[in-house]
Amino acid sequence: MADPEFEFIEGGSVTSPTGFQAGAVAAGISTVAGKLDLGVLTSDAGASAAGVFTRNSLPAAPVVLDREHLSNGRARAVIVNSGGANAGTGPGGDADAREMAALCADKLGIEAGEVLVCSTGVIGERLPMDALRRGVAALELAPDGGAALARAIMTTDTVPKTAAVRSGDVTIGGAAKGSGMIHPDMATLLVYITTDAVITPDYLHSALARAAAVSFNMVSIDGDTSTNDSMIMLGGGASGITVSAGTPLADTFQAALEALCIRLAQAVVRDGEGANRIFEVAVRGAASVADARCAARTAVSSPLVKTAVTGADPNWGRLLAAIGRSGAAVVAEKLYISIGDTVVLKAGVVQPFDAAVASRYMLQDGARFLINLNLGEAAATAWGCDLTAEYVSINSEYTT
Amino acid sequence: MADPEFEFIEGGSVTSPTGFQAGAVAAGISTVAGKLDLGVLTSDAGASAAGVFTRNSLPAAPVVLDREHLSNGRARAVIVNSGGANAGTGPGGDADAREMAALCADKLGIEAGEVLVCSTGVIGERLPMDALRRGVAALELAPDGGAALARAIMTTDTVPKTAAVRSGDVTIGGAAKGSGMIHPDMATLLVYITTDAVITPDYLHSALARAAAVSFNMVSIDGDTSTNDSMIMLGGGASGITVSAGTPLADTFQAALEALCIRLAQAVVRDGEGANRIFEVAVRGAASVADARCAARTAVSSPLVKTAVTGADPNWGRLLAAIGRSGAAVVAEKLYISIGDTVVLKAGVVQPFDAAVASRYMLQDGARFLINLNLGEAAATAWGCDLTAEYVSINSEYTT
Repeated sequence: MADPEFEFIEGGSVTSPTGFQAGAVAAGISTVAGKLDLGVLTSDAGASAAGVFTRNSLPAAPVVLDREHLSNGRARAVIVNSGGANAGTGPGGDADAREMAALCADKLGIEAGEVLVCSTGVIGERLPMDALRRGVAALELAPDGGAALARAIMTTDTVPKTAAVRSGDVTIGGAAKGSGMIHPDMATLLVYITTDAVITPDYLHSALARAAAVSFNMVSIDGDTSTNDSMIMLGGGASGITVSAGTPLADTFQAALEALCIRLAQAVVRDGEGANRIFEVAVRGAASVADARCAARTAVSSPLVKTAVTGADPNWGRLLAAIGRSGAAVVAEKLYISIGDTVVLKAGVVQPFDAAVASRYMLQDGARFLINLNLGEAAATAWGCDLTAEYVSINSEYTT
Repeated sequence: MADPEFEFIEGGSVTSPTGFQAGAVAAGISTVAGKLDLGVLTSDAGASAAGVFTRNSLPAAPVVLDREHLSNGRARAVIVNSGGANAGTGPGGDADAREMAALCADKLGIEAGEVLVCSTGVIGERLPMDALRRGVAALELAPDGGAALARAIMTTDTVPKTAAVRSGDVTIGGAAKGSGMIHPDMATLLVYITTDAVITPDYLHSALARAAAVSFNMVSIDGDTSTNDSMIMLGGGASGITVSAGTPLADTFQAALEALCIRLAQAVVRDGEGANRIFEVAVRGAASVADARCAARTAVSSPLVKTAVTGADPNWGRLLAAIGRSGAAVVAEKLYISIGDTVVLKAGVVQPFDAAVASRYMLQDGARFLINLNLGEAAATAWGCDLTAEYVSINSEYTT
């Protein structure tokens, strides 16, 4: 395997690419005193912008607004709060999201239509707009503010999730949050990606969508899809290097972007509510990419597969049942399953195996289950986390 | 509301209708010593027969066999074991299922093609055929054997699930098992329904499919679909009373059958692995029945709705998010949600409510959440159970 043409930057963030600044304050929106709960990310020169949003039919107010503001493929800033999702809040919530954009625009001396808005937190409560107004007034930008932004978007997350990758003179940075769909007081998957490449909005959108498909769309914590999930990418252009279809850099840029997104997605799963371990389901030999993705996703989402990982129980029948109900084309007589190096099913025939060895392997963080459908050439990999009693206690605590 | 034209029979079972017998033995198939693990159900005169089976693409060997044996719409017996699913067992497993049918047929002096076979237990292990052969030899039929049959199919179930309903001279009986998809050593939803009505195979199948759609298809424990799920109905005809399309009894028969199936389905949910409470999500005003069912099912399957019930937390945003991702047509401005008598959302606008009252209500077994989409006339109801730390411990115990 050739050396990768990109490298991760130690301590990198959304402000690692040239031309981006960020900042965060504790505005008193969150019920946790002193927690950073309002953040801003800006592109000095304005940026090509693209977003991938929740498919939930009841999207939060900021998601509706962002789709509108992204229609021209340009943005200069993102403002985001934790401590309230601004979802299920009706026309009042729409007005609050618009005011957030306007407040941020006034502060920065730009147009409200150049501002994207995100919120995360409990559904069905209006945002405390007074606290938010004071918070915007207090925001300060810094060229190394990416780490603070990553903290401001945390909810049930236990660690900030931030990374950056460099390929030659082009840098891509990222921040993510998410650890369950909704905790009372908190919610959602939010992802911000920045790059200093020169890139058109259309190309940016297709690069982002491809990267989302192999990273954030291939992880599961609890199968619930938030009203607020948002993945936003800004291309500021400060490097002066153009990335577009057919340029020599295009493949490397895409590979670097996908590696960054997978790293952030894995960090989200590893920080899943109550999770102790991440695991990987690799599907090979599928008849189509859609089949491979669907089979891998179904397996990592199954409560029974997840609890088998919790208990390090090599009960591969649960994988078989999940693949069988996934909707992917599958033929029993062709199916191959292995747990790490331990082959348990070959051409549909059960293989004798050492359960103790397989169980010890399953105790590792990152244990890998390989499923070969032997029907074609398509492949996909998904990541999940174990399901623990702590997940239940985090999500059943009475807090409203 | 008019008096129902049917009534439940105290202590009723699959042998409540005239013309059916059943029996069970502890054959040593299960690893639990002395547990009834092999059962048989027979129709003295032969019966119209129909089945509804798992949609899993990797069905167990007995499911494949039953589809074949049901092609003529007739059966005289069902043989069923717990302690092994005979799924993921390849050609050897197919031969074992055929042998089970042949052993039962020899014992009863009928044809193997008249026997239906069911198995439930761990996936990927061959059945202990010696124990099974000895067990079939030891089986004895009794006209009141329904209770023993209901015990023989139990796995992680903590109580047998059996019921019968009578309308005039026609009786319908039922038995069910299920408490999670798969426990190491056990699995699946199995349902047997008997009736002494005179009924054609085609009408029987349509009545069964309609009943399944409003009962067993509207419950969720963990969202996992087994390789072995089977719902089989036998119409023996001993009452001499014909039920067919357009007969005056048809509507009452269907209502009684659905009431029976709903009662058994609720019993399955109430006995869900680790569950303390059952809850109900009623969707009204949907644009289509498919939408209503899908919205209700998604809500009762959501881990976050389930853990809210566990904690009696009236966090209705989780219901909203589940409905939004269900795929059902939904318009935020029309949405109505109530928790028991407490209205929390009306025409998409948050209503002030007493959280303590709603929380106390949610502690009840059978708490009801009503969602009116206000888009049409279609309705559906689904039942789920709370998700507890005990579910996790049951399913993560290391047992292989």
